[in-house]
Amino acid sequence: MRPRPDVGALVAKARDGDARSVARLITLVENGDPALPEVAAALAPYAGNAQVVGLTGSPGVGKSTTTNELVRALRATGKRVGVLAVDPSSPFTGGAILGDRIRMQDHTTDPGVYIRSMSSRGQLGGLSATTPQAVRVLEGAGCDVILVETVGVGQAEVEIASLADTTLVLLAPGMGDAIQAVKAGVLEVADVFVINKADRPGADATYRDIQGMLGLGERAPGDWRPLVVRATAVQGEGIDDIVAAIDKHRAWMEKGDALQLSRERRAAVEVEAIALGTLRARIGDLREGTALSTLAAAVARGEIDPYAAADELIKGL
Amino acid sequence: MRPRPDVGALVAKARDGDARSVARLITLVENGDPALPEVAAALAPYAGNAQVVGLTGSPGVGKSTTTNELVRALRATGKRVGVLAVDPSSPFTGGAILGDRIRMQDHTTDPGVYIRSMSSRGQLGGLSATTPQAVRVLEGAGCDVILVETVGVGQAEVEIASLADTTLVLLAPGMGDAIQAVKAGVLEVADVFVINKADRPGADATYRDIQGMLGLGERAPGDWRPLVVRATAVQGEGIDDIVAAIDKHRAWMEKGDALQLSRERRAAVEVEAIALGTLRARIGDLREGTALSTLAAAVARGEIDPYAAADELIKGL
Repeated sequence: MRPRPDVGALVAKARDGDARSVARLITLVENGDPALPEVAAALAPYAGNAQVVGLTGSPGVGKSTTTNELVRALRATGKRVGVLAVDPSSPFTGGAILGDRIRMQDHTTDPGVYIRSMSSRGQLGGLSATTPQAVRVLEGAGCDVILVETVGVGQAEVEIASLADTTLVLLAPGMGDAIQAVKAGVLEVADVFVINKADRPGADATYRDIQGMLGLGERAPGDWRPLVVRATAVQGEGIDDIVAAIDKHRAWMEKGDALQLSRERRAAVEVEAIALGTLRARIGDLREGTALSTLAAAVARGEIDPYAAADELIKGL
Repeated sequence: MRPRPDVGALVAKARDGDARSVARLITLVENGDPALPEVAAALAPYAGNAQVVGLTGSPGVGKSTTTNELVRALRATGKRVGVLAVDPSSPFTGGAILGDRIRMQDHTTDPGVYIRSMSSRGQLGGLSATTPQAVRVLEGAGCDVILVETVGVGQAEVEIASLADTTLVLLAPGMGDAIQAVKAGVLEVADVFVINKADRPGADATYRDIQGMLGLGERAPGDWRPLVVRATAVQGEGIDDIVAAIDKHRAWMEKGDALQLSRERRAAVEVEAIALGTLRARIGDLREGTALSTLAAAVARGEIDPYAAADELIKGL
């Protein structure tokens, strides 16, 4: 058995900016540690201070490079920055392996930056539970901006968007992304589109495609119209424009109730994911016992249908 | 509102082999239709007659071609065959788009074959709920063998394996797959390895790698030792060897209690997925009401931590 972590001491040290304590707390989140309720209770008073920026896009659009440059630009304004690189596709490896992460080592000696790759393995409730809890840790540690980066596959990008205050969707010319973006429902979640690799052929066409698609959407007066920014992150070009777009979205959010709604939405997703995880764990406990296996055997024999069996199972909770 | 389907009539027609009724029933499964409990109850008596064969592997290893050739070989022995091509990565498109599926049109005029692409979108409980329920439909329609094909990404292949009686893992030489297979935990789920594209350079090395890794695993006496088969599906070579390996595994399962255990495991996964889906729907109903939003607002204000809020939410179920 692992020793029970001293949550109070860890949170106090993380509040003081101790990177190792931050790391340990996020590891507890990643592993779905039994101490998490205690961690959450200790962090609750510090909720809602950080700006959460989601950054997503297909593989190869330059997410890591852009994140790296954004960190640099944000640090130049004196902000404390946290980066969560979430890998939704690696339930097995036990800790996400992101090759590009090596580039982030630009910032490893800067105490104002905390960078962490995480997978959603182990945690009941998956991505929706782990990410907001890791955000809480970084908020507690005094980060002003938290960048949550994830590859746009499956449902991950939409999940991340539901957790971020501001969502950046990266596209690159010539990847057919403008069309893909519409297909994948990304158009609905993006607050800012970044056309990265804007020095490449086709960048203007991608820009026009996105602007055209945004023109088709219906918006009520006062609604946010997504901004489209061009960048060549690998050369550091357009990064200030991205920061300006994030700030503009932030200002719009603060003017109305969007920021408050975004935080409540994040909390709702988190609470729901934790509740589901708890219920799943209880069903898992039933699996250890005889309830589920008895029901499953009856289903396999055709004596009872699976819905009736599921109802029985729920009654036993 | 869509008209409520006449489940009794649909199941009766599907039992008679009417392809359109089979299609409609699987669409109900795919959409998580409210009539599903009724469908499941109507199909329950016909459970456990089909052999479920899972087929998985990385993109590009030749899954569709191999499936196509397996269908041909199984049809030649007079068996009725169902194919479910499950796309775990497209929650958005509403119906999986598998370009390779076009090749399957070889069999579209054969009434002894039913082929269906499906996504796990919409259905509460995801892949684990949809696939066994679609298997039930095909079992009810009299399929002797049901091939469940899915691309080996994320957790999908392990989920499929937990639903199949016999799991085939396809590899191709020169894709680094032998190593990948170990990483992804696939070694544990494969009953038969197929080295496809066996005419390509590196096939012998892949074969040796897999055999070597299988040699390292510990097995109790009487345990199944995975078979390794070479094939070049695109030329129809080795297909009979794959069928022979499936039959051999089937015979081993029937000798002991493995087949029974496999069916009970499938039922357990299905019942658990349905139970979780039901609970999630109930939480979703709470979201419509005020319970979750009131709690989320309190969490966003830092007045309560998300675990305490989740406990409150569960009490309200």
